[in-house]
Amino acid sequence: MKIILIGGTGTIGKAVEKELGARHDIITVGHSKGEFVTDITSPESLLTLFQKTGKVDAIIVATGKIVFSPMERMNQEKYFVGLKDKLMGQVNVVLIGRDFLNEGGSFTLTSGILSHIPIVSGSSASMVNAAIEGFVIGAAIELPRGQRINCVSPTVILESMGDYGPFFRGFEPAPAARVALAYSRSVEGKQTGQIYRVE
Amino acid sequence: MKIILIGGTGTIGKAVEKELGARHDIITVGHSKGEFVTDITSPESLLTLFQKTGKVDAIIVATGKIVFSPMERMNQEKYFVGLKDKLMGQVNVVLIGRDFLNEGGSFTLTSGILSHIPIVSGSSASMVNAAIEGFVIGAAIELPRGQRINCVSPTVILESMGDYGPFFRGFEPAPAARVALAYSRSVEGKQTGQIYRVE
Repeated sequence: MKIILIGGTGTIGKAVEKELGARHDIITVGHSKGEFVTDITSPESLLTLFQKTGKVDAIIVATGKIVFSPMERMNQEKYFVGLKDKLMGQVNVVLIGRDFLNEGGSFTLTSGILSHIPIVSGSSASMVNAAIEGFVIGAAIELPRGQRINCVSPTVILESMGDYGPFFRGFEPAPAARVALAYSRSVEGKQTGQIYRVE
Repeated sequence: MKIILIGGTGTIGKAVEKELGARHDIITVGHSKGEFVTDITSPESLLTLFQKTGKVDAIIVATGKIVFSPMERMNQEKYFVGLKDKLMGQVNVVLIGRDFLNEGGSFTLTSGILSHIPIVSGSSASMVNAAIEGFVIGAAIELPRGQRINCVSPTVILESMGDYGPFFRGFEPAPAARVALAYSRSVEGKQTGQIYRVE
């Protein structure tokens, strides 16, 4: 398969590239580095990307910004960071990418455990991750030409515990390589509308 | 209790007013009509509202716009309608209203069945309703002074089947009076972080 991996330079992305790269042709896309670059908040930037790559069999997104902050310091603007980037960035990939995804091809988005388990400072992440999962179940029944869409919802990543550990006290972290298996299930399986939880 | 009911002039709002009005002092707020008016997308408009009403024991929101459309005709702008109005409008009510809600008081927001059950033309509603539910579980553990937050997630309303029936074929509608009971559970109970599904 020919697979576009947006966020391929990140912690999860590198593990997904290692898992799927052994069997498939991976096009790694970063925000500022990588074989290709794109800004997922910009439909125009995504269109330029897909016009360069041509048609593909799978599109994976493993990236997206969210503000982590105690809720007492959150305001409308801070919530919109995650809505514009991690949520609508991934939705933009679907809206623009659907014309470049082959019949039966798959989108695999990334949400996270906070969609259904809260932590302090995570109200925006809970909102955004739940929204991504809602979008995935809604989009799954409307995509054309047998296109599929799933979502991987990981717990905190072992390799990211330096940055995120203080937010996730008591959570059992998952190694990125284990999380990468869920992306393989989405891309190499045949299901659609699934939330693959790695917890 | 002194209760602010935003969206009090709508189908659900009127039933909530009937249910809770028998026992409590209800301040009905509409977008263009009602005892008070407000624009939930505007923090300034909400601040003006709460400064007029003073402190209250419960704040209910039963309103919010979303675009229903086949996904093939959806674009980024159409998804942002629901994100700005039904999602962030309700979040704004919490962000501004928290300073006007008494100790132990409750917020009750409104999502909907599409958060976890998809219909054609409902990809934005699935996204937005799931986001509201995610926000509620996240916010519940961070609100100050024993403030509570819950969400009512109704199926299609019997009284709205004229408009929404074609989207919800095969769904069992719920009378608005039955949905109103869930708002009573949220306001008059003591739980927090709950999604009350009326399906």
